[in-house]
Amino acid sequence: MRLVVIGAVAAGLSGAYSAMKNIEDLEVIVLEKGTDVSYGACGMPYLIGGAIDEESKLIAKAAREIIADGIDLRLRHEAVGVDFGLREVTARILDTGEVLGIPYDLLLIGTGANAVKIPGTEGIEGVFTLNTLDDSRRIISFIEEKKVKKAVIVGGGYKGVEMLEALHDLGIKADIIEMEKSILNTFDPDVSAITEKYLLDEGFGIHLGEKLDRLETDTYGETGERVSRVVTDKGEYDAELVILALGVRPATGFLEGTGINMTKGAIATDLEGRTNIPVVYAAGDCAMIFDFVAGIDRYLPLGTNSNKMGKLSGLSMAGKPARFRGVQSSGYVKVLGMEQSQTGMTDTAAKKMGLDFGSVLVRTRDRSSYYPGSRNLYVKLTYLKKDGRLIGAQMAGETGTAIRIQGLVPAIYANLTVYDLEYMDFGYAPPFNSVWDSINVAASKAVKTLSLENS
Amino acid sequence: MRLVVIGAVAAGLSGAYSAMKNIEDLEVIVLEKGTDVSYGACGMPYLIGGAIDEESKLIAKAAREIIADGIDLRLRHEAVGVDFGLREVTARILDTGEVLGIPYDLLLIGTGANAVKIPGTEGIEGVFTLNTLDDSRRIISFIEEKKVKKAVIVGGGYKGVEMLEALHDLGIKADIIEMEKSILNTFDPDVSAITEKYLLDEGFGIHLGEKLDRLETDTYGETGERVSRVVTDKGEYDAELVILALGVRPATGFLEGTGINMTKGAIATDLEGRTNIPVVYAAGDCAMIFDFVAGIDRYLPLGTNSNKMGKLSGLSMAGKPARFRGVQSSGYVKVLGMEQSQTGMTDTAAKKMGLDFGSVLVRTRDRSSYYPGSRNLYVKLTYLKKDGRLIGAQMAGETGTAIRIQGLVPAIYANLTVYDLEYMDFGYAPPFNSVWDSINVAASKAVKTLSLENS
Repeated sequence: MRLVVIGAVAAGLSGAYSAMKNIEDLEVIVLEKGTDVSYGACGMPYLIGGAIDEESKLIAKAAREIIADGIDLRLRHEAVGVDFGLREVTARILDTGEVLGIPYDLLLIGTGANAVKIPGTEGIEGVFTLNTLDDSRRIISFIEEKKVKKAVIVGGGYKGVEMLEALHDLGIKADIIEMEKSILNTFDPDVSAITEKYLLDEGFGIHLGEKLDRLETDTYGETGERVSRVVTDKGEYDAELVILALGVRPATGFLEGTGINMTKGAIATDLEGRTNIPVVYAAGDCAMIFDFVAGIDRYLPLGTNSNKMGKLSGLSMAGKPARFRGVQSSGYVKVLGMEQSQTGMTDTAAKKMGLDFGSVLVRTRDRSSYYPGSRNLYVKLTYLKKDGRLIGAQMAGETGTAIRIQGLVPAIYANLTVYDLEYMDFGYAPPFNSVWDSINVAASKAVKTLSLENS
Repeated sequence: MRLVVIGAVAAGLSGAYSAMKNIEDLEVIVLEKGTDVSYGACGMPYLIGGAIDEESKLIAKAAREIIADGIDLRLRHEAVGVDFGLREVTARILDTGEVLGIPYDLLLIGTGANAVKIPGTEGIEGVFTLNTLDDSRRIISFIEEKKVKKAVIVGGGYKGVEMLEALHDLGIKADIIEMEKSILNTFDPDVSAITEKYLLDEGFGIHLGEKLDRLETDTYGETGERVSRVVTDKGEYDAELVILALGVRPATGFLEGTGINMTKGAIATDLEGRTNIPVVYAAGDCAMIFDFVAGIDRYLPLGTNSNKMGKLSGLSMAGKPARFRGVQSSGYVKVLGMEQSQTGMTDTAAKKMGLDFGSVLVRTRDRSSYYPGSRNLYVKLTYLKKDGRLIGAQMAGETGTAIRIQGLVPAIYANLTVYDLEYMDFGYAPPFNSVWDSINVAASKAVKTLSLENS
């Protein structure tokens, strides 16, 4: 029996190992377009910023280890098509141009995603996206070589603000241009406003509601063209370096017209990673994932989701499905001394779904107010008005606070209400929280609000 | 209508305010034996150690503020008896010796607890317990006056190790004498062993399984007698200061023979703080509290429990009961660079109850191994073998790790299983956790263990 896996980063390799561990005598061929495998893509901003000092630290498993584990890893093999009828992947060997057919009994698609680019900017020196380890290397070299002092980041999402921190750590002044009215748009605006205020107070240029108009360039030498300025509908910003952090799109172009179900290019899968095509699985940034809070498939290209769906696909192939209900859109982001975290639905999402919900946002402290080093911790809870059921939570605060969102993750999973949380025993000691934990405080405010509305 | 409250620290004042806010035209009389009110007793070790620089920071509300809020606060009034038939408290005014009867319509007993002492040691200079703010003051004065360099702490529970840190912060070398085989006995020994190893590596004397035999004294001046040495069944330790951290007992001597239900002096209450006597409530360190995981009333004298039961009592008096299921024995402790946290049952507790349980203890990291500053985080899960239901969790690790127990608090509350937790979406970003969160890792090991046992 042969499993072919397309893609050797998080989803692909998780799936390959999971299947291999659980199915006897399985032949595993992994095709990888590039030469980098099994790297922690989420660590790239920290590699660029220098917090991580060696590229090798991002590599979970080197190619030689994967091969030693018995996986037939084929680098620089790009999948260019699949015949689901014949059960055969067509791959091009990039170094020779040779094209070959590789039959499979099981197929896992883990091709990941490509960064969204802006047409016409690709040839310009100093303009980068950050999607692969190679992108990181290019950015690092460029910064070192050009001694960059001024940058603009287009897009204020997770990757945008992480790059702000990275560039700041390198002594590079960076502005963020964000089209929407707030940065970090997976959060509600009132939560992201806390980080925006922090960044503005620290002197960063955070330009909200501004749309990129064009990049201006200098020419140099014979044919060189390098970026010099970013022009938006509202302003102009000098920049020797421009990072386009506009999100990613599934790398599934080679599957168009094959009959595999996709939404905006993201492959539809069930909770075990199965696609609509027999024996074909998909996982990671090329696929959708089920969000059980919203009750819909979503495109959530996150490292943890890739690893989970990869592993679950392998288990499913082995006939050993795990108990998995889907994800709940949990996430964290850190930018310098500020952190945000979330799980479940935001107000924005609940509104879009037409739910009858309420929400509270409270400012608390992360430890007893009398204990040294106590910090602000903002907690937002979103709940159904009908019964107080918690459907979402967001936190913002200084270093070390955002991890507390974990206390609300199983609460949402288990359909608990703000009434359950008001007196829940989160424990207490002065270095850790207050006598009334921040979650109790937020839940108590929600209970009061519900009671006033019902009276 | 008159509410009489006995005790003006956490439980008593929480109850007084809660009742006053929710019942119109309520007269509230609060009797307090001492002169200190509304202080954060959990902060006392940090006051002694100097982390908290001013005593006033521990005071949530000064007596004058309480009086300004309309509460008839009577300091140095000691309750010496209650006539539940007549509905009258007998109080002695300590400054005059006068005894008076104070009738009540509602009564809340919040007298707290007294430190366990060792008979015969009370007159000896240099021997202290730590139960009240006055105790703290005495310890602080003694240390300053005598320039203490060497101390012994008898008892390695929460307060014992917190005092170890406090004394260490003051440059005082302290040993701990613990009768049991491990310190921090509300945890399992394999978890506390992590902190024991840390403390031993740091050069502290942690003497386990040693029983106090006697205190030796020096005489000085005319009649002075001061402690000089602690003698156990296994060793002798020089000490200018001895802290007896042997736990507390409910301060309910004045209720003996009144017909109120008590177990070992702790008043039995329901989930709303009601005792077996009509219109009489009890809360805090003088009372039991229901632990819904164990399914029994327990004596858990903790600040958060006092505040909760105080508030719940007041709401109950007002006919506005809240949704409260009881506590789940959650707690944290910090000692220097180490932390431990727990919720639900330990293996030790599960064994005592005769449950068919399993447990796993894993060592994980608190953030991506490649992210700077990553620390060990030990996670222990205790679960029922029958269905994998989580009944307890413990964590140990370096600074900043123990708060993660919060992610397991609602899991236990909601009867979730290790199968639910294996793939639960705790989110991921390198500064916060790993692609597989520590809780996922522990749950996954539990699932594997269960599957091996059942195969």
